[in-house]
Amino acid sequence: MKHKLLAILLVLVAQGAWAQQATWIWYPGDYEIWLANKMQNRRTEKGAFFPPFWRMDAHYVLMDFHKVFELAAPEEITIHAEGPYNIKIDSRMLPGMPAKLTIPAGKHRINIKVYNQAAVPALYVQGRTIFTDSSWLVTNEDKEWIDESGKVSDQSGTTWLKAGSWNFNEPGSLPSAFELKRQLLQPVSAERKGNSLLLDFGKETFGYLQLNGVTGKGPVTIYYGESKEEALSPEGAETLDKLAINNNSKGVVMTPSTKAFRYVNVQYDPAVQIDSVSMWYEYLPVEDKGSFRSSDEELNKIYDVAKYTLHLNTREFFIDGIKRDRWIWSGDANQSYLMNYYLLFDNASVRRTILALRGKDPVSSHINTIMDYTFYWFLGIYDYYTYSGDKAFLQQLYPRMQSLMEYCLGRRNKDGLMEGQSGDWVFIDWADGLSKQGEVSFEQMLLCRSLETMALCAEIAGDAPGVKKYEALGAELRKKLFSIYWNESKQALVHSRVNGAPTDNVTRYTNMFGIFFNYFNDQQKQGVKQQVLLNNQVPKITTPYMRFYELEALCALGEQAYVLKEMKDYWGGMLKLGATSFWEEYNPSKTGAEHYAMYGRPFGKSLCHAWGASPLYLLGRYYLGVQPTSPGYQTYSITPVLGGLQWMEGKVPVPGGEVSLYCSTSQIKVKGAAGVGTLRFTSTGKPVCKTATIRSTGTSQYEMDVEAGVEYLVTYKAVPGIKK
Amino acid sequence: MKHKLLAILLVLVAQGAWAQQATWIWYPGDYEIWLANKMQNRRTEKGAFFPPFWRMDAHYVLMDFHKVFELAAPEEITIHAEGPYNIKIDSRMLPGMPAKLTIPAGKHRINIKVYNQAAVPALYVQGRTIFTDSSWLVTNEDKEWIDESGKVSDQSGTTWLKAGSWNFNEPGSLPSAFELKRQLLQPVSAERKGNSLLLDFGKETFGYLQLNGVTGKGPVTIYYGESKEEALSPEGAETLDKLAINNNSKGVVMTPSTKAFRYVNVQYDPAVQIDSVSMWYEYLPVEDKGSFRSSDEELNKIYDVAKYTLHLNTREFFIDGIKRDRWIWSGDANQSYLMNYYLLFDNASVRRTILALRGKDPVSSHINTIMDYTFYWFLGIYDYYTYSGDKAFLQQLYPRMQSLMEYCLGRRNKDGLMEGQSGDWVFIDWADGLSKQGEVSFEQMLLCRSLETMALCAEIAGDAPGVKKYEALGAELRKKLFSIYWNESKQALVHSRVNGAPTDNVTRYTNMFGIFFNYFNDQQKQGVKQQVLLNNQVPKITTPYMRFYELEALCALGEQAYVLKEMKDYWGGMLKLGATSFWEEYNPSKTGAEHYAMYGRPFGKSLCHAWGASPLYLLGRYYLGVQPTSPGYQTYSITPVLGGLQWMEGKVPVPGGEVSLYCSTSQIKVKGAAGVGTLRFTSTGKPVCKTATIRSTGTSQYEMDVEAGVEYLVTYKAVPGIKK
Repeated sequence: MKHKLLAILLVLVAQGAWAQQATWIWYPGDYEIWLANKMQNRRTEKGAFFPPFWRMDAHYVLMDFHKVFELAAPEEITIHAEGPYNIKIDSRMLPGMPAKLTIPAGKHRINIKVYNQAAVPALYVQGRTIFTDSSWLVTNEDKEWIDESGKVSDQSGTTWLKAGSWNFNEPGSLPSAFELKRQLLQPVSAERKGNSLLLDFGKETFGYLQLNGVTGKGPVTIYYGESKEEALSPEGAETLDKLAINNNSKGVVMTPSTKAFRYVNVQYDPAVQIDSVSMWYEYLPVEDKGSFRSSDEELNKIYDVAKYTLHLNTREFFIDGIKRDRWIWSGDANQSYLMNYYLLFDNASVRRTILALRGKDPVSSHINTIMDYTFYWFLGIYDYYTYSGDKAFLQQLYPRMQSLMEYCLGRRNKDGLMEGQSGDWVFIDWADGLSKQGEVSFEQMLLCRSLETMALCAEIAGDAPGVKKYEALGAELRKKLFSIYWNESKQALVHSRVNGAPTDNVTRYTNMFGIFFNYFNDQQKQGVKQQVLLNNQVPKITTPYMRFYELEALCALGEQAYVLKEMKDYWGGMLKLGATSFWEEYNPSKTGAEHYAMYGRPFGKSLCHAWGASPLYLLGRYYLGVQPTSPGYQTYSITPVLGGLQWMEGKVPVPGGEVSLYCSTSQIKVKGAAGVGTLRFTSTGKPVCKTATIRSTGTSQYEMDVEAGVEYLVTYKAVPGIKK
Repeated sequence: MKHKLLAILLVLVAQGAWAQQATWIWYPGDYEIWLANKMQNRRTEKGAFFPPFWRMDAHYVLMDFHKVFELAAPEEITIHAEGPYNIKIDSRMLPGMPAKLTIPAGKHRINIKVYNQAAVPALYVQGRTIFTDSSWLVTNEDKEWIDESGKVSDQSGTTWLKAGSWNFNEPGSLPSAFELKRQLLQPVSAERKGNSLLLDFGKETFGYLQLNGVTGKGPVTIYYGESKEEALSPEGAETLDKLAINNNSKGVVMTPSTKAFRYVNVQYDPAVQIDSVSMWYEYLPVEDKGSFRSSDEELNKIYDVAKYTLHLNTREFFIDGIKRDRWIWSGDANQSYLMNYYLLFDNASVRRTILALRGKDPVSSHINTIMDYTFYWFLGIYDYYTYSGDKAFLQQLYPRMQSLMEYCLGRRNKDGLMEGQSGDWVFIDWADGLSKQGEVSFEQMLLCRSLETMALCAEIAGDAPGVKKYEALGAELRKKLFSIYWNESKQALVHSRVNGAPTDNVTRYTNMFGIFFNYFNDQQKQGVKQQVLLNNQVPKITTPYMRFYELEALCALGEQAYVLKEMKDYWGGMLKLGATSFWEEYNPSKTGAEHYAMYGRPFGKSLCHAWGASPLYLLGRYYLGVQPTSPGYQTYSITPVLGGLQWMEGKVPVPGGEVSLYCSTSQIKVKGAAGVGTLRFTSTGKPVCKTATIRSTGTSQYEMDVEAGVEYLVTYKAVPGIKK
């Protein structure tokens, strides 16, 4: 009986008796560019509009969507579009602009053309078996004749791409009307003094203010502060709102745009009364799929605050920080992607951000005008593929990867090296005295990795000559990197070459990237570790931005115990100063309100910066130790390292599930998902697992396979803080 | 006293005591692209939205405008912008978004950044000496580092262009709100039958309908007809409107969009009453600066109807025809430009159209997808420069000319010839049986001329290597054109080469263009004239589109008498059929409503097509005979040719004035403008001019100089209809 029912259900599904869910679709990348323009033009500074300083592209205004259907029976469809549209069935244009339509049985091609200049032309079609999704094809009618993978060209030479979409699954959820979610929150304290009201929302937060019970007529000025000092400094506060109140009877007044703050200083005219102030917390609803808990309460706190920091900066896109720029910076985003893979695994946010950063052809500058940020864009794609296994996205992105890489290659100097040209910003890090002169080794290394990414994606896009070309360019540059910059006596890649001569200057940047890019041989690795990474003579890194990579390199070298201490010092240091989110920069030698200054302004520093959340990544990848070893976790390794903790437990999201792990000095409990995982660990005694075979791989080294969905208990004996 | 006043006035002007007129400015080309998107997406066919089928570009959403000022005294400015903006004075950002501002005395740089995603970021600043105009610089912050003329790059590599503008000279004339002018007109007749109303507006026209005294509830369908037959054919009418009336009391109802028509068939529900119908004629207000009158009344009528035809098609841009496409087609526009130079001399319309046609980089298809239309775009620029002398426009356009030419050069086949590839439309003309196979000589000739245009513009843009490159490419192609296609026995360039072998096929196209491009030697010219142009065995041209060039070639060969007869036959033929504007195509062998059919549809033909207005150009350039001989009429020739007329008179607009001419068989009266003109004429007796020196230049050939602003009377003796 049960089987019969199931069979009937399957037949019904196959026949499409139940309609499948349609979603709004558009030209891939266009909605992302449009939405990023909106978001990035919301920055204000002291009330002034403060837009980005690079070229912002725009969506194509006219779109043709199509799909070929084979219908067993006539089918009614409803059509919603953002903009005027027309419909062709089998190339015949229908009169008018029908909102409903019956398609006859048989094989038919439906084309719908949508025009919209103010917002992105988008389409939503819902029938029983016909429904818009990413299998629909879309063209801007570029008539490009490129015989290339990832593109479908029809006989007229028109390029068809697979439609872009997100999660606008209802006809009424217009993409152009997208807004983040909101939640009403109250301050934890409110202090009234004369005609001012000082509110504390208890922690760093983001959103609109709602002034309650407002009457009277007069101006209200609101100063926002990530710190109390900032809110109380009308001259220093980075953001403010000026409202003109004119209420006869008590009413609610909303601020016109979102701000970041913990403290709010509301200064009102004597002729104005305000009963109280609430806020609408604004956020992107994304679920935490990863987690981490350990025997160290401070570390747990660090993890929680990092989590909140990432959430605050995960919005329409991954942004740098919520107070000031609120822009998409490629270098910052690249780190958010990595943290995301261990907390949210929200690949849609990664894709949106990658598309928005890239913009459109022709390429006329580096991404965000920063040379390194162009390369991080490529690196982010490499990582995206590694974690998600999403080939389809890369195939469509490949032409824009090519044109950006051609731009880079065209800007190499006569020696084939990247050197800052006019208009280029060679950034590397916010650090005093960091030389950008000549050919910086860091940029060459990032280009090299970008070329390797190109070769990988050329393979995925089926561009065989591309594979060859990029592999050769990458190999050549890697060779040059060592022949020019490797200094045997310093056991390091030096910082730069100026006027044809390598400098003596050793910095951490190139060397730490070389570690986790796996560019060094074992001897070089040890040299770099001792003479650069663990050498106090080499200038320290003070931004969480580059701390991310420094600590990653140390973890990759098995220095989890050292890194744990560093994390507790650095992030713990911020917590001790009352941080409720992690900062753009932290220098323990400063005191009091000095911490809030940056860029020559007393409150210039952002106290909630995405790159401050790197413990999420470090703890997931290098302590819980879950890493994909082939794209999309088809295979992966689980190499828990306690690094001095008594125990830790947590989850790491993978496609279609999660890997959960508990690890103490005597037990490892693990449950896999996705493909085949390999648990690797060190045990000073013979480990035991009743349900799996443990293989010995060296002195005290063991490994065992972890099948998806199965829970394993391993009893072993670890030395806390052991270096791997 | 008078002198003293003047001196004071001059001092006041110099001191800027009177404010100069500001105008709205934007990124050059962006407003044109935006407005063209709007216009070209207004086409409907049988009520369905019918957009173009090529890529439509979009404006940049974020703009930085700047200018450096030296102020003798502090000055207040008012700022209007289309979009949020910020202001920097000497790189310091001002708080808020001030609408008024006082700039201190001294030298200052003002930067205003404007953001707008829905419409073009535009700026209007008015002070006493500070006012927005095309001397302001603007950048989309592309950070392009191109050291090239026509571009100004600052130290950050940002490219600055001179701002674009049109005639939005009031702060309230928002560019985004632009609309053409309207005038209320009444029908010449109205015939009511049952529930239908047939209106005749007396001639071809364009605009909105206004239904007067409308009451009741029910549907109204309006069928538009350029002919009565079309309006009376609900199935055949190309355009229609469906209105849903729901009026309790009598009111006015407007149609939602403009249409082209002479006749209107209003079919209304019995429950609806309509008192009468008016129309709002919609037009671009441009002045007629040229004129033509002659002893031939039919020719005068032709001129008048051509004039009206051009006006109807001169709108936001030069469009092809007002009923159907209402799009900007490059081949059509190229002819409108030429007619414009002899009637309107409205260079702003030429510039708008050139910019809109070009769109943006990257180039992914030919203009309008048509190979020849790409080349006409280049040719139009050549002509624009010749007539206007406007170097500034070309300098800024040059980079987009380069990228389009690179696209063309990249699509040549292995023999360096243009051949239709997938996605290319090789058009040439609407003509049955016209072969597009292989390498068509017509396309090579247009490319050759385009390369010559590139060389000219490279010179203007200061691109010396470009001059060399394009000159060499042009010379090489010109040589190839003759070595491959010239057929000595046929005394013609043959139509094409197929599979490596020139065909025997002779068509008029390449040969007639070769005449007015001056590509033939004298012997070839005569051969082409006799064996092609005046040879009835060579397939006739039936479209006014190609008639334009055919008749131009004949005029260039001195066949004005022949051409006059042709004009009277062809355009006079349309008049005899009741044409009130000239048609897309005219075939005298058809009868009745057959004339209205095209593209397999009974009323598919457009009865008001810009290319039908070519007599404007022919009469101005080859009868009145006024032609620039150096850019912008610095020098020009006046070579009146009566071509059989007893007398003619007219005006030809030139920069800053007009050349007026009266010419009979015994008298020439001429008044020049601009630079130095040379009057050339044939006289069988010795001519006399009391105020100028007449030089003899051969048997019965004379010439004399015409100074600007001076009127000359020449007495001479011409033989009517003489061939020159």
